[in-house]
Amino acid sequence: MVTLSDIRAAATRLAPHIHETPILRCRSLDEAAGRPLALKAENLQRGGAFKLRGALNTLLQLSAADRARGVIAHSSGNHAQGVAIAARMLGVRAVIVMPQNANPLKVAATRGYGADVVQDGVTGDNREQATARLIAQHGYTLVHPYDDDRIIAGQGTVGLEIATQVNDVDAVFVPIGGGGLISGVAAAVKSLHPGARVFGVETEGADDAARSLASGSRQRLSAVPTTIADGIRSLSVGERNWEIIRRLVDGVLVVSDFDVAAALTLLLTRVKTVVEPTGAVAAAALLSRKHADRIGDVRNAAVVLSGGNLDLGSLPLALPLADPPAGAHPISVTPS
Amino acid sequence: MVTLSDIRAAATRLAPHIHETPILRCRSLDEAAGRPLALKAENLQRGGAFKLRGALNTLLQLSAADRARGVIAHSSGNHAQGVAIAARMLGVRAVIVMPQNANPLKVAATRGYGADVVQDGVTGDNREQATARLIAQHGYTLVHPYDDDRIIAGQGTVGLEIATQVNDVDAVFVPIGGGGLISGVAAAVKSLHPGARVFGVETEGADDAARSLASGSRQRLSAVPTTIADGIRSLSVGERNWEIIRRLVDGVLVVSDFDVAAALTLLLTRVKTVVEPTGAVAAAALLSRKHADRIGDVRNAAVVLSGGNLDLGSLPLALPLADPPAGAHPISVTPS
Repeated sequence: MVTLSDIRAAATRLAPHIHETPILRCRSLDEAAGRPLALKAENLQRGGAFKLRGALNTLLQLSAADRARGVIAHSSGNHAQGVAIAARMLGVRAVIVMPQNANPLKVAATRGYGADVVQDGVTGDNREQATARLIAQHGYTLVHPYDDDRIIAGQGTVGLEIATQVNDVDAVFVPIGGGGLISGVAAAVKSLHPGARVFGVETEGADDAARSLASGSRQRLSAVPTTIADGIRSLSVGERNWEIIRRLVDGVLVVSDFDVAAALTLLLTRVKTVVEPTGAVAAAALLSRKHADRIGDVRNAAVVLSGGNLDLGSLPLALPLADPPAGAHPISVTPS
Repeated sequence: MVTLSDIRAAATRLAPHIHETPILRCRSLDEAAGRPLALKAENLQRGGAFKLRGALNTLLQLSAADRARGVIAHSSGNHAQGVAIAARMLGVRAVIVMPQNANPLKVAATRGYGADVVQDGVTGDNREQATARLIAQHGYTLVHPYDDDRIIAGQGTVGLEIATQVNDVDAVFVPIGGGGLISGVAAAVKSLHPGARVFGVETEGADDAARSLASGSRQRLSAVPTTIADGIRSLSVGERNWEIIRRLVDGVLVVSDFDVAAALTLLLTRVKTVVEPTGAVAAAALLSRKHADRIGDVRNAAVVLSGGNLDLGSLPLALPLADPPAGAHPISVTPS
């Protein structure tokens, strides 16, 4: 299991290459949440998401022979970009397997970072096989999006930074997809501040981790959920991630897509910072005020804004929320 | 004329109440502009724009009797919010005169800051008379949006901060509407760094200051221009502002609405920061690369992001620019 010293080693390895992202604060959001929020701005990380941390921590530990053959990942999201950027930094070939119907803007962005994108005949269902075939042919190293100790230690550096940047933090809120981010963050935060709680946040329909923690065994969704938070649509958390989550994570809170869009809108209009829907998921748990029973006693909350690669075309989804009908929503904001 | 010591006095007066806004930097934008850009983030100021500085510097200098009677402003934009916030801080009544057809969201925001909004029978053409009538009736003090030494000194604190935050700044870029911001910034920057140049930026059709500087006399537009940069739609710069601009401003650069929308899109997608169109005007002068003849030798540029109160409903305007047709636009961006 990943330890604090693994995460510290990752931080040393990554320091020359990544940003120590800032903590953003906003009085309006504090009032909406009923407590001070320390917003850990991984939307300002290179590549626009935390994913570069784990990808680069992995690539930096490959042998020269593995680096010479190149790396591969299957992702149509931020992991693809994280691997592509890490590979370009180190002069390593990166192959990214994406479904044929992937968003052309994301394909272009990944190619823009210098990766080779393979789409021929690839679907959401067969992409793991397509990836395995390319590995067999070319000897590429797979960079898994979450179920890998090097990935977990890399993402854990987010927790290390929170522990030093936020005074008296007593709870950290993190979105859960495959669990790479929260497992790393929990390993770091619980080692440094054993009294601090770590909460995962999922959206309705994508609540496998909530059900896993409630039942005590890792649950798997039967189909890809339709949540707007496209970064957390994985069917289950990874094995290595689950081992950490079940021991260290204090709870998983579930919010609606509406809550996420409302949080995203507040982050845009009040904090003036751009997050993608997944990047607003953890904030939604606090801003929706739905979970007073679980987190009512939290004073200083750190909230991971996990990514900022918002598709501007999707923004109109959030528009009706700029002025929600009276009584329709528990968010109330007074100006800063 | 406003002096450096007036601006320093304003800074001391304002310090307990305003944010010293950060300088944002982004490799992608530096590459797009061909030089490092120090983005002075007044979109992160309280109220979402620089306007609070001048309004508060004015209110803090009113007599107790004037404060007791209250203040008035005519504005449907950021000046209204700046006055409203300043008044609320000091427990002063604020009356804001807005046209009947003003954006209901802006009316609600201004009311949200505690101001009394007067709209009955008010149009864009008669709002100065409506304001004068209310002043005659109630003895309110008018807070002018730009043509006032206290306003100029307050806005000038932006220049003071740039001079201390940005090493070796050799040019500062500022949007020009009525000229309150640029006159204050120029007074501060030229006193502290006489070798640094100060450029105003306007949009096509709203280029009265460019024509004023070219002709040597203050020019006035014959009609309100239709630019998307709604914060710089004034017909001319103010008298006091012009006296400073003609002496201290090195040039006024003109950009198109297309340039502004493209700059706004880059600020959203690359810097992950939310600006309104007017807040992107100064950046557009550098990102469009249209003015190499005037600014080709600028090394370290400071760019004022003047405001962040983006109407999300207007955002789709900027969308086609996320992927401009090849050759259609001089902006080229490589990933950070």
